[in-house]
Amino acid sequence: MNTNAKQSYRLVGILGGMGPAATIDLMQKIIATTPAMRDQEHVPLVVWNVPQIPERVRAIEDPSAASPAPAMCAGAVALARAGAQAIAIACNTAHYWAEEIGAAAKIPLIHIVDAALDALPAKASGPPARVMLLATEGTHKAGIYTQRAAARGLSLEVPNAQVQRAINDCIRFTKANQLTEARAQLIIPLTQLRASGVDTFLLGCTELPLLVSGTPFQAQSLDATAALAAAVIDFSLGSVAHKSDKTIRNPHLGDKVA
Amino acid sequence: MNTNAKQSYRLVGILGGMGPAATIDLMQKIIATTPAMRDQEHVPLVVWNVPQIPERVRAIEDPSAASPAPAMCAGAVALARAGAQAIAIACNTAHYWAEEIGAAAKIPLIHIVDAALDALPAKASGPPARVMLLATEGTHKAGIYTQRAAARGLSLEVPNAQVQRAINDCIRFTKANQLTEARAQLIIPLTQLRASGVDTFLLGCTELPLLVSGTPFQAQSLDATAALAAAVIDFSLGSVAHKSDKTIRNPHLGDKVA
Repeated sequence: MNTNAKQSYRLVGILGGMGPAATIDLMQKIIATTPAMRDQEHVPLVVWNVPQIPERVRAIEDPSAASPAPAMCAGAVALARAGAQAIAIACNTAHYWAEEIGAAAKIPLIHIVDAALDALPAKASGPPARVMLLATEGTHKAGIYTQRAAARGLSLEVPNAQVQRAINDCIRFTKANQLTEARAQLIIPLTQLRASGVDTFLLGCTELPLLVSGTPFQAQSLDATAALAAAVIDFSLGSVAHKSDKTIRNPHLGDKVA
Repeated sequence: MNTNAKQSYRLVGILGGMGPAATIDLMQKIIATTPAMRDQEHVPLVVWNVPQIPERVRAIEDPSAASPAPAMCAGAVALARAGAQAIAIACNTAHYWAEEIGAAAKIPLIHIVDAALDALPAKASGPPARVMLLATEGTHKAGIYTQRAAARGLSLEVPNAQVQRAINDCIRFTKANQLTEARAQLIIPLTQLRASGVDTFLLGCTELPLLVSGTPFQAQSLDATAALAAAVIDFSLGSVAHKSDKTIRNPHLGDKVA
């Protein structure tokens, strides 16, 4: 008996390429978290992993720089045309343009910040947990996390300039496939922050979970990518209510498929 | 100076989902093999990772079973519509329908078997190298590798029934995310085959590289997925001549992008 034999799945579009390794990390987390015993029980995804997009952080910092919005909107439209019923963006910084992207695609956006804030552990008593946001300078400057957190009455701490420089170096090394060099940047600042009383590191850049994985900091980190993966699964499997009820129900799949 | 600043890239469509982990493995190998120092130098991919496709091996063995061809062709058409200029299929067995898929998409197919046979090491002297094909029963029965090898004057060995059963179990465990159990199936048969004089294991199922990676058999294995990744990069970067010369040249990317 396979209880999932009649399960329907919504197709989710992943707007990726920022960078490609972070896109794969999101896909991997979706697969690893899905309760599947065979191929057909995994979440259907269509992935736009096209990295030829102008730099996001630079565009936030310098209004005269090339905007990534047209390329991202084109990717979102391609995903919607391919049948995606919602879009998830595999890059925190790119959420600066989230409204524009969702409007271009004309389908709902599964927002990484909402997914991450939903996943923050609740603290039963005592002073509120100290949560430090680790992200790109662009994400900080644009207030991508802090604004949505404030709307929920949550306060997020941000690193000082010295720690932020180490985070910037980390992210750059990761995008160049230099994971060992990238990880080396993190150890001292995160150790100091932990000693100073930070409870949770909110990993608000999709490159950071690649680095923190397997380190002593993993246990007190909240991975926004993992939170987004869980939200994508919920949407696809239908446990998130949504006005659209079109689903992938392959006429060629049925009781004969084992 | 960045010599790649003016590089153009062809968009490649990946027909995946068979299974999803193998699709990610192909993407990962493309990224790891691409000489890139920043996001924008990675190969642009659009990925159809929709696993709701009837079982491929069953359809080859039993003509009355549901055919995966309509779902695969629909995926290929979606990739072509999204702008893909060639298709790579992240599943060896699915290449049984390669001609049908290519015809539906009306774009070239980068064939995994050709990529793998191109990558077989040449032997300078002595008797020909003994190459054993490890694959699904469907791939063996359909002659997906052996026919194309024979056309090149190459002979591939195939496992006996007992070893094939272990390979089948391996692949099933991998698709259920049970990598430890899957790997345990391989050790004795591959050790025996090596002792009997097999020079190279040709990993002709996209799940197998996930298992052989990090084992003593990796050094004498030829990974068809890695060969396909290299062929995808060659196509995208333009080192493979092709009549189509449409490329991704983002008007928003230029000297300003660092």
